[in-house]
Amino acid sequence: MVGNVVALGDKVVLISKHDKRKYFIEVEDRSQKILELGVYNPNKLVGQKFGSLIRLGTRDFWVLKANFIDTIDTLKRKAQIILPKDSALIGLYGNIHSGSIVIEGGLGSGALTIFLLKLVGETGKVTTYEVREDFAKYGKKNVVMSMPKQPLNWDLKVQDITHGIQETEVDAVVLDIPEPWNAVAAGYSALRAGGILVSYIPTMNQVENMVKTLKEFPFIEINSFENLQRDLVSKTGATRPAYEMLGHTGYIVFGRKVIEK
Amino acid sequence: MVGNVVALGDKVVLISKHDKRKYFIEVEDRSQKILELGVYNPNKLVGQKFGSLIRLGTRDFWVLKANFIDTIDTLKRKAQIILPKDSALIGLYGNIHSGSIVIEGGLGSGALTIFLLKLVGETGKVTTYEVREDFAKYGKKNVVMSMPKQPLNWDLKVQDITHGIQETEVDAVVLDIPEPWNAVAAGYSALRAGGILVSYIPTMNQVENMVKTLKEFPFIEINSFENLQRDLVSKTGATRPAYEMLGHTGYIVFGRKVIEK
Amino acid sequence: MVGNVVALGDKVVLISKHDKRKYFIEVEDRSQKILELGVYNPNKLVGQKFGSLIRLGTRDFWVLKANFIDTIDTLKRKAQIILPKDSALIGLYGNIHSGSIVIEGGLGSGALTIFLLKLVGETGKVTTYEVREDFAKYGKKNVVMSMPKQPLNWDLKVQDITHGIQETEVDAVVLDIPEPWNAVAAGYSALRAGGILVSYIPTMNQVENMVKTLKEFPFIEINSFENLQRDLVSKTGATRPAYEMLGHTGYIVFGRKVIEK
Amino acid sequence: MVGNVVALGDKVVLISKHDKRKYFIEVEDRSQKILELGVYNPNKLVGQKFGSLIRLGTRDFWVLKANFIDTIDTLKRKAQIILPKDSALIGLYGNIHSGSIVIEGGLGSGALTIFLLKLVGETGKVTTYEVREDFAKYGKKNVVMSMPKQPLNWDLKVQDITHGIQETEVDAVVLDIPEPWNAVAAGYSALRAGGILVSYIPTMNQVENMVKTLKEFPFIEINSFENLQRDLVSKTGATRPAYEMLGHTGYIVFGRKVIEK
Repeated sequence: MVGNVVALGDKVVLISKHDKRKYFIEVEDRSQKILELGVYNPNKLVGQKFGSLIRLGTRDFWVLKANFIDTIDTLKRKAQIILPKDSALIGLYGNIHSGSIVIEGGLGSGALTIFLLKLVGETGKVTTYEVREDFAKYGKKNVVMSMPKQPLNWDLKVQDITHGIQETEVDAVVLDIPEPWNAVAAGYSALRAGGILVSYIPTMNQVENMVKTLKEFPFIEINSFENLQRDLVSKTGATRPAYEMLGHTGYIVFGRKVIEK
Repeated sequence: MVGNVVALGDKVVLISKHDKRKYFIEVEDRSQKILELGVYNPNKLVGQKFGSLIRLGTRDFWVLKANFIDTIDTLKRKAQIILPKDSALIGLYGNIHSGSIVIEGGLGSGALTIFLLKLVGETGKVTTYEVREDFAKYGKKNVVMSMPKQPLNWDLKVQDITHGIQETEVDAVVLDIPEPWNAVAAGYSALRAGGILVSYIPTMNQVENMVKTLKEFPFIEINSFENLQRDLVSKTGATRPAYEMLGHTGYIVFGRKVIEK
Repeated sequence: MVGNVVALGDKVVLISKHDKRKYFIEVEDRSQKILELGVYNPNKLVGQKFGSLIRLGTRDFWVLKANFIDTIDTLKRKAQIILPKDSALIGLYGNIHSGSIVIEGGLGSGALTIFLLKLVGETGKVTTYEVREDFAKYGKKNVVMSMPKQPLNWDLKVQDITHGIQETEVDAVVLDIPEPWNAVAAGYSALRAGGILVSYIPTMNQVENMVKTLKEFPFIEINSFENLQRDLVSKTGATRPAYEMLGHTGYIVFGRKVIEK
Repeated sequence: MVGNVVALGDKVVLISKHDKRKYFIEVEDRSQKILELGVYNPNKLVGQKFGSLIRLGTRDFWVLKANFIDTIDTLKRKAQIILPKDSALIGLYGNIHSGSIVIEGGLGSGALTIFLLKLVGETGKVTTYEVREDFAKYGKKNVVMSMPKQPLNWDLKVQDITHGIQETEVDAVVLDIPEPWNAVAAGYSALRAGGILVSYIPTMNQVENMVKTLKEFPFIEINSFENLQRDLVSKTGATRPAYEMLGHTGYIVFGRKVIEK
């Protein structure tokens, strides 16, 4: 159950009524610079009802508890992130849900990590391997800031996942690294029987390589797919698909561990 | 953490090595008729290592703990079910994850319910409204059978959700009913501020109606989309998209509750 | 057979080597203002080999005989035009080819007309009905300019096609007008038995209306579809679909005339 | 202008009112076996009005002059054929229309050849290279049977197109052969400046190879794309995309000849 009003420590999103832009804010008693909103002390938000409109300067904003999509929409990103739709499908085909034990290879900006942490919850666990110290630092900041509270179910290791995974009997291994085939052996070892290795891959040549490598191990149900999302512009009497559409994000490739093949 | 070997009470899937067909089995000490496998007492599976191959009659099968996709692949269904990819996107855009409190309108064969229960876990709760007694009975059997253990986080009400929802301050309302616009008022009342109403809808005309109704209430971020999934056939030197593709499942329509607009 | 070098009267396209921009030019002995190229007398092009690079100012351009795609890429347009891919499919499903007799409802910017004229050739005929005088004038300019020579196989009538078509026994009636169902009766009368009425339609509500109306007449093989095109970005070792993609253009709806149903 | 009634020598299609199946018939005075229709002398059709219903046995059929789609729907095929939508786009991006001079590599079952012949008409010309004698024989039969009259604008050569093309200054070279990159040199030589080489290609790896080879020659505007078509099921109040959809046919890859690069 959530509180009905903003409290210190909350992570909220302000959504402009005018242009729908979103601003992510940690409610602390400290003046902050919030992009074009200028300097603002969010302690003024304390006691505001969630879902109400507030006025800042000359504009109206809805104040809402930040949810997963809000954190992704406002995430500071270095490179391309895994989009929410792909995170959801990685979760699905990785059989990741409340209570799952997951290894993640590649932290990036942390978008997928945040999703996985929400998915597994307090009874689950995510361990992320990131080989680059600078990425680890940058992504960690994003993850910690985006979660409602300090994530106790998360471990971040500055290690190369292709060199090995210490954890065993895990439910899923999720890879978003440049050459995921190099982590298949480590992933296979870490997984429990029936556990799933799932990889997010930008090009078809990499898919080819990954599928080939998965086939060399006792994985079954090896599949790869792409997923396209298209908005519908719904107006009474004039409904049509949207003109804007993202033609490609990445392929999702996965296999399920067995112990003999 | 899972056990490494099959135990009484487990829900397992047998996957035929030959043709990849799946058979869902509750491991009880009682002979059962398992489709074309004939009469079989699954207590013979007890002690088998998960992930190993066993021989039944003249065929080899992998024995695995049944996961979500397995339960959907083997679910007895009356009508068309919501496919896993759409369940995952409903979960995503409904902001449903470990710990979420969710209302579901329409049980159907239970496919979406099973997904939601796995998603919210023991710290969350799903309450399903199903107006037809026969559907409730049929779907309940599917849900109970598919979950690893008796779902304590689930309530099933044989009630018409368009007549009202008793629960309040819920995180999400998910609708898979023929005229979801009739449940928007009830859904709005049940949601907390910031909570999301999300609906699965087969035709464009229904999307039009639903979006129109959502706009009459204080919902923001009203969106509708469709989602297409296409397999990649990955062979070294000859990779191409699959010929088989499902051209349509349903649209996903959603809006986020605010308290003033 | 074409000439190998530019001659007076040719319609050529200059394609910038630098940024691939295209410039459509009628080769006359008269200085013209060619967008950012400045004032230029294209008679300087006379004698240049087609396919060669020429230098204008500080930039290199390929000089080529303008083809259909070139004319569309450089067409002055008032509103959204029918894209080449849709024109091609209209031609296909309208069974329009060399020698066909075609009625077109709606001239617009002339993009589809130019395509139809190239398709039917000198042994065929296109008659275009355009209700608005200003559109007729504007579109005609585009058509005449884009064709290699004065199109003798084209008639333009400033008339409302929904009021009737004078021609009879035509092979195809092509409609790109706001309420095409109002022209179905006229189209049916004008067509020969087996002739096809084909319509380009932006929204699904209009498709519904159009299909309903076609069904009220002796048309068979009534179909409607949409068509999506996606580029492939082909790099050795890193091939993937393009990120940019147009999510919607229009639906194509058609039916084939019989004389009893 | 077409005749209104069936005459000897016509090529007609019978479309079953009951199940919409199509039967292609050459109207000769000779009893033929027409699949499940049994033995039938089509001279009985002579004098029937096109577009009318006739009764054969216990079923009603529309009698219509066979058009391009009819010939493809009823074509005897050995392997997968190029579908009409792809033929139309090959025609479009190859800049092939009434009067064009075209070289085709690979006859196959003749589906694309028939389309090209209709497109270029009597003022154009298609020359087809087919390396295998048996394919040449088989495809030729299809082409001759499908055209309304003996195609005088067609040459068929039983030669390997990768060994060279005798024709020069052609408008387009169209390739549907297993390793089209081996015909790029021959195609380049045969094309006029500004002419287009266009290829139909099943896998991404072949696209990669083809694009790489095209880049080694003076071709510009090198592009590759795929094209998806999806039916709309239009019912008043319940319109939606079709469930059935073909997920992949082939990629279309093309480039435009210049004489220096």
